[in-house]
Amino acid sequence: MRVLRVRYQHSSFYAALKDNTVLCLNPQLGLVDPIPLEEITVLPVVAPTKVVCAGLNYKAHAAEIGMPVPDEPVYFLKPPSAIIGSGQPILLPEASTQVDHEAELAIVIGKESRGLRVDQVADSIFGFTCANDVTARDLQKKDSMFGRCKGFDTFLPVGPWIETDVPDPDNLTIRCIKNGEVVQEGHTSDMLFSPYELVAHISHVMTLQPGDLILTGTPPGVGPLHAGDEVRVEVENMALLINPVRDCLERSGGDATPVQ
Amino acid sequence: MRVLRVRYQHSSFYAALKDNTVLCLNPQLGLVDPIPLEEITVLPVVAPTKVVCAGLNYKAHAAEIGMPVPDEPVYFLKPPSAIIGSGQPILLPEASTQVDHEAELAIVIGKESRGLRVDQVADSIFGFTCANDVTARDLQKKDSMFGRCKGFDTFLPVGPWIETDVPDPDNLTIRCIKNGEVVQEGHTSDMLFSPYELVAHISHVMTLQPGDLILTGTPPGVGPLHAGDEVRVEVENMALLINPVRDCLERSGGDATPVQ
Repeated sequence: MRVLRVRYQHSSFYAALKDNTVLCLNPQLGLVDPIPLEEITVLPVVAPTKVVCAGLNYKAHAAEIGMPVPDEPVYFLKPPSAIIGSGQPILLPEASTQVDHEAELAIVIGKESRGLRVDQVADSIFGFTCANDVTARDLQKKDSMFGRCKGFDTFLPVGPWIETDVPDPDNLTIRCIKNGEVVQEGHTSDMLFSPYELVAHISHVMTLQPGDLILTGTPPGVGPLHAGDEVRVEVENMALLINPVRDCLERSGGDATPVQ
Repeated sequence: MRVLRVRYQHSSFYAALKDNTVLCLNPQLGLVDPIPLEEITVLPVVAPTKVVCAGLNYKAHAAEIGMPVPDEPVYFLKPPSAIIGSGQPILLPEASTQVDHEAELAIVIGKESRGLRVDQVADSIFGFTCANDVTARDLQKKDSMFGRCKGFDTFLPVGPWIETDVPDPDNLTIRCIKNGEVVQEGHTSDMLFSPYELVAHISHVMTLQPGDLILTGTPPGVGPLHAGDEVRVEVENMALLINPVRDCLERSGGDATPVQ
């Protein structure tokens, strides 16, 4: 099943994609199915309480950025405010001169979970989707902490849908395609720690909530994005995430919206 | 005004603390004020969409952990799942042999905000509180990324209330008191970047939401916690956060709660 998060008639809900329609997955809303795709607004596919991102999870990527391979999973967090959906633009901030794409397989948690064994993980996963862990590489080197370089608004394209039927997440091909050219390609069997191993490890540290997102690391081939580029993250036979790239036109003088 | 987040008669709401009672700040609930303190449950004082933590923001702390002083604010994220309130125990995980206290002044955001100038920040702040940026120091050195060492459940005591009247946040004394002994003491005038400068910088990276929490860094004197300790974070004349420390008894076999 391919699951979208959508807005329709002032309600936001998860919906199953079927041909050119969606079926509402929340029967309490009492909507008449199917709803044509052109009548809905597709939202970013998750609204997580946290986003946990594995680093250095492909040996060849660790080598290309000059980092040693870890003996346990290592990870950092991205803020939910960075999330955008398929079709929305990645905005290049003025503060950086090198913003890189990082194509990744993302896991969407389905249940509140803690302390999972690897053989329990499948039952806690709702599904899988594509993510782009956009990174200001120059600021990553300068700051040593990842709050800024990984945290800009629009630096986390996710989607376009959640695929719930992924019988073997260790057998997936991931690609990044920039302006029609394949620039990253990897296979989840080349991960140092498998998707299930990552979730189990993280669940022993922090309680995972439904909708939380785990990014599984990027294969080799990361490289810069420029205004006017189109970047695609593809997990073969599963999903395709497409985002244009634009310069961020910084607002001067701030923008504070009062609480409603 | 001192603001608590409380539960009372199946509702959760913000309330003003007055002597031994609270006044509900949500008139739509139609509650009869004042409510005696013994009739409410005090909740962790914030439920943020993200927690942004400044690192190395006191020169003397950077020196004690052997890090160079940054020329711009540097920061990382902690997961909201780490938050506990005053009185709740900090649980020492089996994975670490050195868990340190880090006493900090915390800022609670009041408005959706982005791209703020320093002179606009005060208007976007709801108030201030105490926080303990509990850190597994051994895992911080090992991992190089902060997801694990800063992210364990219970590693973010916050509270006990939000003080909304802080006319000069650059003139506050912060202490950590372990088992009755002052182990950290610093003054916000010794920060490399002031509270308002931190918020302005972060707001140019990520959109801040009401309830989001900004931790402003820790003064020198960080040190280990052990089971049986009591650790207090005090911002003088403002708030006092008290937490016992216990060993975490890891559950075997996982704990996945189905989505309701």
